[in-house]
Amino acid sequence: MANRFGEVFSVTSFGASHGKAIGAVVDGCPANLELSAEDIQKELNKRKPGTSAVTTPRKEDDEVQILSGIFEGKTDGTPIAGIVFNKNQHSKDYSMFKDTPRPSHGDYGWMTRYGNYDYNGGGRGSGRTTIGHVIGGAIAKKLLKKYGIEVIAHVTQIGDIKSSKLNIEDIEKNVVRCGDLDVAKEMEELIIAKKQEGDSVGGVVEIIATGIPAGLGEPVFGKLDGDIAQVLMNIGAVKGVEIGSGFDVANKLGSANNDEFYIENDEIKTRTNNSGGIIGGMSNGMPIVARIAIKPTPSISKLQETVDMKNMENKKIEIKGRHDPCIAPRVTVVAESSVAIVLADHMIRSGFIHPTNIEND
Amino acid sequence: MANRFGEVFSVTSFGASHGKAIGAVVDGCPANLELSAEDIQKELNKRKPGTSAVTTPRKEDDEVQILSGIFEGKTDGTPIAGIVFNKNQHSKDYSMFKDTPRPSHGDYGWMTRYGNYDYNGGGRGSGRTTIGHVIGGAIAKKLLKKYGIEVIAHVTQIGDIKSSKLNIEDIEKNVVRCGDLDVAKEMEELIIAKKQEGDSVGGVVEIIATGIPAGLGEPVFGKLDGDIAQVLMNIGAVKGVEIGSGFDVANKLGSANNDEFYIENDEIKTRTNNSGGIIGGMSNGMPIVARIAIKPTPSISKLQETVDMKNMENKKIEIKGRHDPCIAPRVTVVAESSVAIVLADHMIRSGFIHPTNIEND
Amino acid sequence: MANRFGEVFSVTSFGASHGKAIGAVVDGCPANLELSAEDIQKELNKRKPGTSAVTTPRKEDDEVQILSGIFEGKTDGTPIAGIVFNKNQHSKDYSMFKDTPRPSHGDYGWMTRYGNYDYNGGGRGSGRTTIGHVIGGAIAKKLLKKYGIEVIAHVTQIGDIKSSKLNIEDIEKNVVRCGDLDVAKEMEELIIAKKQEGDSVGGVVEIIATGIPAGLGEPVFGKLDGDIAQVLMNIGAVKGVEIGSGFDVANKLGSANNDEFYIENDEIKTRTNNSGGIIGGMSNGMPIVARIAIKPTPSISKLQETVDMKNMENKKIEIKGRHDPCIAPRVTVVAESSVAIVLADHMIRSGFIHPTNIEND
Amino acid sequence: MANRFGEVFSVTSFGASHGKAIGAVVDGCPANLELSAEDIQKELNKRKPGTSAVTTPRKEDDEVQILSGIFEGKTDGTPIAGIVFNKNQHSKDYSMFKDTPRPSHGDYGWMTRYGNYDYNGGGRGSGRTTIGHVIGGAIAKKLLKKYGIEVIAHVTQIGDIKSSKLNIEDIEKNVVRCGDLDVAKEMEELIIAKKQEGDSVGGVVEIIATGIPAGLGEPVFGKLDGDIAQVLMNIGAVKGVEIGSGFDVANKLGSANNDEFYIENDEIKTRTNNSGGIIGGMSNGMPIVARIAIKPTPSISKLQETVDMKNMENKKIEIKGRHDPCIAPRVTVVAESSVAIVLADHMIRSGFIHPTNIEND
Repeated sequence: MANRFGEVFSVTSFGASHGKAIGAVVDGCPANLELSAEDIQKELNKRKPGTSAVTTPRKEDDEVQILSGIFEGKTDGTPIAGIVFNKNQHSKDYSMFKDTPRPSHGDYGWMTRYGNYDYNGGGRGSGRTTIGHVIGGAIAKKLLKKYGIEVIAHVTQIGDIKSSKLNIEDIEKNVVRCGDLDVAKEMEELIIAKKQEGDSVGGVVEIIATGIPAGLGEPVFGKLDGDIAQVLMNIGAVKGVEIGSGFDVANKLGSANNDEFYIENDEIKTRTNNSGGIIGGMSNGMPIVARIAIKPTPSISKLQETVDMKNMENKKIEIKGRHDPCIAPRVTVVAESSVAIVLADHMIRSGFIHPTNIEND
Repeated sequence: MANRFGEVFSVTSFGASHGKAIGAVVDGCPANLELSAEDIQKELNKRKPGTSAVTTPRKEDDEVQILSGIFEGKTDGTPIAGIVFNKNQHSKDYSMFKDTPRPSHGDYGWMTRYGNYDYNGGGRGSGRTTIGHVIGGAIAKKLLKKYGIEVIAHVTQIGDIKSSKLNIEDIEKNVVRCGDLDVAKEMEELIIAKKQEGDSVGGVVEIIATGIPAGLGEPVFGKLDGDIAQVLMNIGAVKGVEIGSGFDVANKLGSANNDEFYIENDEIKTRTNNSGGIIGGMSNGMPIVARIAIKPTPSISKLQETVDMKNMENKKIEIKGRHDPCIAPRVTVVAESSVAIVLADHMIRSGFIHPTNIEND
Repeated sequence: MANRFGEVFSVTSFGASHGKAIGAVVDGCPANLELSAEDIQKELNKRKPGTSAVTTPRKEDDEVQILSGIFEGKTDGTPIAGIVFNKNQHSKDYSMFKDTPRPSHGDYGWMTRYGNYDYNGGGRGSGRTTIGHVIGGAIAKKLLKKYGIEVIAHVTQIGDIKSSKLNIEDIEKNVVRCGDLDVAKEMEELIIAKKQEGDSVGGVVEIIATGIPAGLGEPVFGKLDGDIAQVLMNIGAVKGVEIGSGFDVANKLGSANNDEFYIENDEIKTRTNNSGGIIGGMSNGMPIVARIAIKPTPSISKLQETVDMKNMENKKIEIKGRHDPCIAPRVTVVAESSVAIVLADHMIRSGFIHPTNIEND
Repeated sequence: MANRFGEVFSVTSFGASHGKAIGAVVDGCPANLELSAEDIQKELNKRKPGTSAVTTPRKEDDEVQILSGIFEGKTDGTPIAGIVFNKNQHSKDYSMFKDTPRPSHGDYGWMTRYGNYDYNGGGRGSGRTTIGHVIGGAIAKKLLKKYGIEVIAHVTQIGDIKSSKLNIEDIEKNVVRCGDLDVAKEMEELIIAKKQEGDSVGGVVEIIATGIPAGLGEPVFGKLDGDIAQVLMNIGAVKGVEIGSGFDVANKLGSANNDEFYIENDEIKTRTNNSGGIIGGMSNGMPIVARIAIKPTPSISKLQETVDMKNMENKKIEIKGRHDPCIAPRVTVVAESSVAIVLADHMIRSGFIHPTNIEND
């Protein structure tokens, strides 16, 4: 299970930061969906660094190839392997991290758990691993789109700067991927300021999925919000997940938090959406709204305390190099992808998408 | 998957609020663990309502029987079926809810998804379903205890009242299950005040697990925090999950959030625990700390808008009867159980507990 | 996975021969299927011993109760727990088997694997465990019948006596469950003769499923024949599984074994059915035909060599009591049940049956 | 599940006969196993055709690359992706099979199930797909060897010619992979004779695994023999699976079939091995013995009846080209691989191999 996500529409991911390749095998996508490498490339480009002052200047020209699962431009029901060959994987010397885990990085867990750890660029614990998520997510999104479902993510907070407006067209117009261009400017400045201090800063990303039919999600242990929480918390930098009102519910009264029903144009809707589109683990037809807390990138250039695990002694470490001062903007596409995989999986499992051939729908 | 949780140590749950019985089949518990019905009963009693002014006055004298899996007082490696027969299941008339979903309850999802919905007492969407969680959790806790792991939960917030102290012995000494007796008193008063207004209130529960070895959790898609987030979000009333610093990380700098390592008594520790015991999806040996947002109980006695799904028309509803004005105190044991199941499962999967016979450890 | 079978339509089984109860939780059955305890009881009665001279004279009046999953006479999409309470579970002293495994019984494996083994009546290794299979199978059969699928099994060989005729109505008219009444008589005599010698005899059971749509089964690792082989080999006494021509293919030429296609009444059929209804792991619309080899019951009253595992010394054993001299007749319903579970599961997974509500089909 | 096999040590396979590449992602292999591409290549070479008169003269110089999961010559606990790029994938015109399924090939199932079928060279239904099995199996074998387990397969029957001798060193010395060089010669002649007639012939392959500890296998639904039966029946040409005495048990008495226990050198053994090393679904420490029936290759050059699925009319077909007149010899390595995967998976699941790091054993 370690490297596979999804029950029916599933993504098996492989590859490490500085290995030969990173990729994913997507199983369970029904046949007859038009799909090309460009559909995936377009999404991968969104997680590409080096495109602005708020990300690492490191270049990663990740080019995806589809190795299987497509026949005459359409999926054929067989597993879709997408792969990105790593370039420049021997560009840098990471040996100083061999026995010396970086604070709040995964290094320590990997070393302890497996004994043999590819410490180059964080190995499989690197953010580059999310290339696999995005390959899977791009396919999921293409499939969902045919059924009227869209998944978007935007940055709603960086440090203490919060946006409350969402203009979907604006998200791709600013490097922070915020839905409010004015606030985006402030966020960008904050990130750059922290970068110049050799520090990093956290943020919040909101994911919204629209076009969801009611009744998606399997109670009691396969709930839609449970699966979304899992997939989002599995993203490296995430330390919190909220659905709908989230932590605000703690200080709300039932009378204010309950989403009352009404009928409009022969459809059942709720007047508010504090539930974030999911009640009792099942969708209610309203937009699904989730938010995730992104921690400040642990790679900072300040001197930090750590240990030498081999000699079991205290040590200081300084992480040089080019790092993302704030990872939230690049997490957006990974979060979209993750939620899209969950939705595609549940749409099939719940009978809304035919499991073998979408032409049967 | 709908009703099963866990890969190896797994819980398959069944039963509805007003059906004949509620129970769980626990598969994958290794042999030779001493276990009796009392071990489970003790935990079940913690979720029992009717014990104070802050819960529903409804009586549920749930008595558990173990039907299988124990031989000569110890587990024998076969599935452990625990069962509670429902009493008084025909005590009330719920027919007014047949086509009329209660706002922010699961009713609407169940009706839409399955067509045939046992609306009595919320059917399988009822909080009574968590009896299955607690059966599984009680066994998980007994197993974990042999390996030095303890899981506790306490209420840290009700409405706007927050506790910042945790005295573990005090948790069971107050009806709110708060770790601070003074704050507990205030919380209790707030709950009773809201109850008298016919309203309900939300809260926050914190779960702490100690004694965890480093290296637990499967990157990339079987991360320990991902699994904890899932299982906690799967609890009915939960709308948010945090690990460690949680949403506070959004407004933190890397230099403040990073957990620096040091060596103490030949053990690697971190000076802070902003990671909540989990980095990169794997435990780091520090206590695991999670927090969940509990929404105000949706059953309130105020008049609410809803719809008649059969006749597709707007309607008003008033939910009479005895309800929990705040569910947070009773959620504590369910949260402990849920996390304990995840931990027991991972302890076996990661090789810390022998999968078939604990005498082999 | 130890005690669960099926991906979507799944059966989780529990209970031992002399424990309190044996049962199964069936998850993933869609809503709105009419179902009653009688549907299950009818099937359970077929595996009941004590009904003729060819089975053990031991009485097992197994009465099933449904504890959950049914609302107003129909499934409601929640897990269906079926349970049989064991009677007379303390009728006999089995302590002589405590450290002394019976040859070709599961005892040795259970003792070695789990350390703590309920040796009474074979514990969970007993044939009584198949009550769980039959509970699951009865529900699967009821579901399949709505979609025109029937699964039957009959005895085709006992010792060296083979039947080549199949009259479906005759199966239930003879104690051997053979499709040929004349041969059945001979088989019965052979079984009784071996019983009088204190010995036992093996046989072959054939399973036929009709009404199967083409395209059922998931290549490459979820093949229909692979899943059928697994579920049938999982039945205690089975040592071989064949699909279609089975082992005869070893001595056949391609020209004789290939099933040529033709069109009849606008349907594609094959002139022969050497494939047994499955090619490339997927059904082809022809009847599915499988055969299983049933070993002679290992419980015989002759003196046998075994070992005392505690003192690690050789020992002789004589298994007294009432045993089935041939288990093949009673295996028929277990085999039907097992195949029905696989078919129900695949029918849902392949989109032929709606996963949540059959009224959507 | 369609393209994934194994619970913990698992193989996810992808790729089609004439696509860009075929490969497998092996997840769950513990860290610190020495592994190189040569370990896999050596096994892949065994399934290579074109090496003798009994296989197709078609050349397939399959060269495997490992893309991930190895660090400093050893596994590091992350998924191991092995890949073979297809060469000459556009060498031939298969368009005559577009709507015309070949008898007893998978074509019909693929077309019916998915609508969009890559008919070139049988697409993913091709025997080339077993490259994925062998990649997984080679890794499993390397792992098992460290724990004293070996898996070998040999041809025991071709047409009506049977071998009864097994000289393990001789298997690789003859093109039929028979354990008896004299019989091998006869088998080879029979295959060539049938090839010259434009026909094909079937056979039997036996798989033997030695060094297995007692207590491997999960009763009741995760039995070792059930899993072996599944994985073997999932191999394309297999129509029957036997364990131990197999179908012979039908005509055996309990007194002849039971494997009596005795102690030798402080080890518990059985005098006979009719059980084929597995009783009650668990290993008993004796060698595991399984046999599979291999059907004659369906590709024959004789004229055959089929249908045009597009125009729904009867049609004749003649399959030209170079085919294996008997696939049994090449199946041996696939069968070994398949059983090795099951054994590696169960060895980890049962606690005999540490799940994360073999240096912990």
